[in-house]
Amino acid sequence: MIKAAILGGSGYTGLEIMRLLAGHPEAEVIEFSSRKYTGQPVSSIFPSMAGHEYDSLVFKNPADLADTEADVVFLCLPHGAAMDIVPHFIERKKRVIDLSADYRLRDVAVYEEWYKEHSTKNLLADAVYGLPELHRDRIKDALIVANPGCYPTSAILGLSPIVEGGLVDPNSVIIDAKSGISGAGREASLKTAFCENYGGFEAYNVGLHRHTPEIEQELTLLAGKDVKVTFNSHLLPVSRGILSSIYADLTEPRTTAQIIETYKEFYAGEPFIRIMPEGTYPNISNLRCSNFCDIGLWVDEARGRLIVISAIDNLMKGASGAAVQNMNIQFELEETLGLTGLPAQLG
Amino acid sequence: MIKAAILGGSGYTGLEIMRLLAGHPEAEVIEFSSRKYTGQPVSSIFPSMAGHEYDSLVFKNPADLADTEADVVFLCLPHGAAMDIVPHFIERKKRVIDLSADYRLRDVAVYEEWYKEHSTKNLLADAVYGLPELHRDRIKDALIVANPGCYPTSAILGLSPIVEGGLVDPNSVIIDAKSGISGAGREASLKTAFCENYGGFEAYNVGLHRHTPEIEQELTLLAGKDVKVTFNSHLLPVSRGILSSIYADLTEPRTTAQIIETYKEFYAGEPFIRIMPEGTYPNISNLRCSNFCDIGLWVDEARGRLIVISAIDNLMKGASGAAVQNMNIQFELEETLGLTGLPAQLG
Amino acid sequence: MIKAAILGGSGYTGLEIMRLLAGHPEAEVIEFSSRKYTGQPVSSIFPSMAGHEYDSLVFKNPADLADTEADVVFLCLPHGAAMDIVPHFIERKKRVIDLSADYRLRDVAVYEEWYKEHSTKNLLADAVYGLPELHRDRIKDALIVANPGCYPTSAILGLSPIVEGGLVDPNSVIIDAKSGISGAGREASLKTAFCENYGGFEAYNVGLHRHTPEIEQELTLLAGKDVKVTFNSHLLPVSRGILSSIYADLTEPRTTAQIIETYKEFYAGEPFIRIMPEGTYPNISNLRCSNFCDIGLWVDEARGRLIVISAIDNLMKGASGAAVQNMNIQFELEETLGLTGLPAQLG
Amino acid sequence: MIKAAILGGSGYTGLEIMRLLAGHPEAEVIEFSSRKYTGQPVSSIFPSMAGHEYDSLVFKNPADLADTEADVVFLCLPHGAAMDIVPHFIERKKRVIDLSADYRLRDVAVYEEWYKEHSTKNLLADAVYGLPELHRDRIKDALIVANPGCYPTSAILGLSPIVEGGLVDPNSVIIDAKSGISGAGREASLKTAFCENYGGFEAYNVGLHRHTPEIEQELTLLAGKDVKVTFNSHLLPVSRGILSSIYADLTEPRTTAQIIETYKEFYAGEPFIRIMPEGTYPNISNLRCSNFCDIGLWVDEARGRLIVISAIDNLMKGASGAAVQNMNIQFELEETLGLTGLPAQLG
Repeated sequence: MIKAAILGGSGYTGLEIMRLLAGHPEAEVIEFSSRKYTGQPVSSIFPSMAGHEYDSLVFKNPADLADTEADVVFLCLPHGAAMDIVPHFIERKKRVIDLSADYRLRDVAVYEEWYKEHSTKNLLADAVYGLPELHRDRIKDALIVANPGCYPTSAILGLSPIVEGGLVDPNSVIIDAKSGISGAGREASLKTAFCENYGGFEAYNVGLHRHTPEIEQELTLLAGKDVKVTFNSHLLPVSRGILSSIYADLTEPRTTAQIIETYKEFYAGEPFIRIMPEGTYPNISNLRCSNFCDIGLWVDEARGRLIVISAIDNLMKGASGAAVQNMNIQFELEETLGLTGLPAQLG
Repeated sequence: MIKAAILGGSGYTGLEIMRLLAGHPEAEVIEFSSRKYTGQPVSSIFPSMAGHEYDSLVFKNPADLADTEADVVFLCLPHGAAMDIVPHFIERKKRVIDLSADYRLRDVAVYEEWYKEHSTKNLLADAVYGLPELHRDRIKDALIVANPGCYPTSAILGLSPIVEGGLVDPNSVIIDAKSGISGAGREASLKTAFCENYGGFEAYNVGLHRHTPEIEQELTLLAGKDVKVTFNSHLLPVSRGILSSIYADLTEPRTTAQIIETYKEFYAGEPFIRIMPEGTYPNISNLRCSNFCDIGLWVDEARGRLIVISAIDNLMKGASGAAVQNMNIQFELEETLGLTGLPAQLG
Repeated sequence: MIKAAILGGSGYTGLEIMRLLAGHPEAEVIEFSSRKYTGQPVSSIFPSMAGHEYDSLVFKNPADLADTEADVVFLCLPHGAAMDIVPHFIERKKRVIDLSADYRLRDVAVYEEWYKEHSTKNLLADAVYGLPELHRDRIKDALIVANPGCYPTSAILGLSPIVEGGLVDPNSVIIDAKSGISGAGREASLKTAFCENYGGFEAYNVGLHRHTPEIEQELTLLAGKDVKVTFNSHLLPVSRGILSSIYADLTEPRTTAQIIETYKEFYAGEPFIRIMPEGTYPNISNLRCSNFCDIGLWVDEARGRLIVISAIDNLMKGASGAAVQNMNIQFELEETLGLTGLPAQLG
Repeated sequence: MIKAAILGGSGYTGLEIMRLLAGHPEAEVIEFSSRKYTGQPVSSIFPSMAGHEYDSLVFKNPADLADTEADVVFLCLPHGAAMDIVPHFIERKKRVIDLSADYRLRDVAVYEEWYKEHSTKNLLADAVYGLPELHRDRIKDALIVANPGCYPTSAILGLSPIVEGGLVDPNSVIIDAKSGISGAGREASLKTAFCENYGGFEAYNVGLHRHTPEIEQELTLLAGKDVKVTFNSHLLPVSRGILSSIYADLTEPRTTAQIIETYKEFYAGEPFIRIMPEGTYPNISNLRCSNFCDIGLWVDEARGRLIVISAIDNLMKGASGAAVQNMNIQFELEETLGLTGLPAQLG
């Protein structure tokens, strides 16, 4: 049985990892931390977990996890906090799966431009961008798994087959992304208040979202040349789900059927990617609480443009589900373990 | 492996049984019917199931299930439709779990007053009201399991310990119940249209809800005397969840702590009942997609009145989860099999 | 033109008063305060008001309103803050409409039991409980209008005709109330966060809600004897609206039609009370953004019990709409001025 | 007093026109029709209107409006139904404001490609596309006002200043639009059912939406050359509101401030267009129930691309509000009459 610790367990991604490992046959959570809730049982914060054996555990002070007996440490900390603590766990031979942005950007200058000064730059080379569909082989032995951002996951999975194949001009790419509000985390804030969002819809961080360089990094790797995309994010008045509508100019004419075939080949054997039949498109409902990424495709032949609709659950394939998938890879388990539950279509 | 067939598989309860059996280690769905969708694969109606092995099955015409090889038949048909078909399956030695109201009321006159003429009255005596917490022993060998209504489940579980114990005057009972809209089924209707319900809240069928006699039947059995309750239902602008706020006059003074103790004793060992700590109350979010019934309690000592808050997921403990629990009992499996997933606290 | 000032203008009730007075032919807002947003234009906080002439005003420091030229001051401050500032405005001959609880309870001991020590007890006798349907005559000349609480408004309007008439036993009254989340105010808080409420529903402050004494005070006056009720509140996952389901034992048998007649007589001529036809019940959608109180009625003859469904918009008849109605009364204007807009049925 | 009749009054646009004219000082509804609800009072279908004088009217059979005394007829009928009835009213010298698509497309071939055969092609030349910001002068005397589609309104208003000015390449335009569900009308349908949409989000009619030619027609006029755009629509889980995120390549470098200035000049004096300050973007909440169109702008200088966020209330500026604005123009009233209510920021 793999033993897991969660640092920053009191946010939504921490809760989701607990939910997943509670149903995982080969892994279990042995402790979790929360500065804010130190000493409190999990069900006093997350009543959904009442009655579960994890409820006999209490939130610990992060410092008390320094000598954890866990085999793997999930870091659900704010951007900028993980990088200070990662060396400690690497020295102790823990597997580290970091859900923050701290090790996602290979180029430290880019990180520091969008975030802050990096305290452990030297470790960046040891981190692997944790998107199994692109980097499965390297994830297995990575010292640090840099779990991808939620928006980038939907965008990169939606674009990889055609950017790698050169089927579109990558610099024509426009990503219009919409996310449920859990993507903003579990903090008291007027921005995420119920009444400020119910019945509403807005664009935010227009042109300035920190997920842009992450998308560009991976697409640049796939394209083999510098890629700049337009990325725009919106706040959807639901709890979970990301849907990205992506537009790109085709380099030469192709039919929708041909493009669908390209995607099916690229993702052959991938357990969590579902390419939808022609004429149908994803709905975030249809993958709620699951690790699926659903992709729908349409070629606008008259305009020479491809539309890709790519959807995930931001807390699952966009965060905690991906983290568990990465853990499975690192420990050489069946990759879908603990992730086989069907979507809860009704929210 | 237990083989299951679902008649009326294209509604929300049918979908939910599929979702549950897809994760059940000892049972599987081998076929399902839908008059409306005959011949179509499940994922064309429920895209959430795309990629699952069940998607290789198609909806059959109900008549084509007459010679099913299933061991158990789940009837997800409208009230009044199940009673005509049940004898057929009983003769063929199938286990029958009926999610309609057709066999819930022992007194045929009451059934016919609230519903319609009963075509197979003679079978009523062979049916067991499928609430394991009250009738577990008789469910095991029942020819027909009459799966309880969603509102009655929340109300009866909320009241059993104190009605049986005579701690409250059962005729003082007022049940103010609120249900998510999936309780109204999956039919095109202006009543259940998005725009008619979003941001809204209303009482409906005031004083006339057909779940009233079902509640009274079970409370009468528990009380050992005739019970009449006031039951009132409301439509909550969410998909899933029922929360019943129940008021009853205490027969003699008791504290909240004493009442909580009574509930804990009554439900000792029950895997799906969670009695909440004093001062905390259920939220339908905290049991979403799970088979739990959460109960919170408070004694208004000044007024000699007890408040019970009882909550379930109407599609789970209120329908499909209970159906799977009953199947487990009938086939002498661990009762929680396929039902251990933690709630999806974020909807 | 009546000149109005709003203290605490950055909450939802302040915003709603601005919206109403923007459409009022005889009154206008000349200034508003917000400690938090001092110096900022209104549309930087409430973008809905962009382009309106009020947007040329900025939030002032509360202290800067000390010498306001306003004729009427709306106090949208937290409970306990209004009472310190009211004497100042009374001395300056301002009309004072206080939306907090500070002057609602005639018995200072009751106030201090539920809230805190009262700093200006001597003024309690000069305050009138601002429910025009009960106290219209006294509101006109009141030094202080104590604008009623939102829950109490729905409960008292729902009960007045039968409690005054002695048609029900007032001590049998149970009020099961449900409110949209704007009732909790406009503060950053995890309790009112989107993800903590979307798709959820819960009871809160069970048996301990501070609106209980306010309801009992008014019903006691109407009944002419001491009344104790059971009041229970729930958080509805919508922004606006309160619906109270009220249960009471009839003192002698009556039909639904008779009860409806009683209500129609009691509320004859009232512009904002709508008694619904037999067999129909309120939906908070149907009065959204309006000052209406809709009341539906049903007698359960078999159980000798009356069910009253009473609904309002908590920000309108439950707060700001009532405040404007009270202002109209005080300044001897047509009582419906600025309040004639039809409900926005679609939220 | 202008007398208005509404054909097809039982849908959401008909209801919204009633709501607006109820508050209009110079116009009133004298009758409305509904085949489905003939003979029923308006409040039995729309309880929000209970108590209003319009409630004394009943839905008439459409045929009974043939000899209406109305001065203006609002046609809220399905596409394809208006064109058969329009000649009748024109002959009788009624002003006709048609909310369907029947007279929006000047090129009958385009209409017939996207809709059906046109029965009164000869009248197309007499119709004016009812977007006052572009065609105010011609609306005044138009025999038929073809009230614009909801999506096209948001898109065309969002693009006009830069397409007319040649600041962007119109063929690079991508419109990613999201609409609340009331845009699908008031019909019983599984597609618009609550449970099928709550918590969900999807793209639909990808690349095939019938609003595309309408947008292209107007942009072609503005550009003075043939324009083809990519238009993509999504279903937002709210009742009201459209937000279009629009992307276009700049023909030469400009700053955000310059672009904002261009929009302000183009829309100078327009009462319903609000150009937002740099760095802020529209939220559909901020214009709910109002006739505003809010536009936010951002230039991605590195990529030479402009992002326009354009938002309206689909039932107001996108349908009924625009219809009333057009009526005001036709009858030479103040254009904002009946449309001055501030947005209901809280839904």
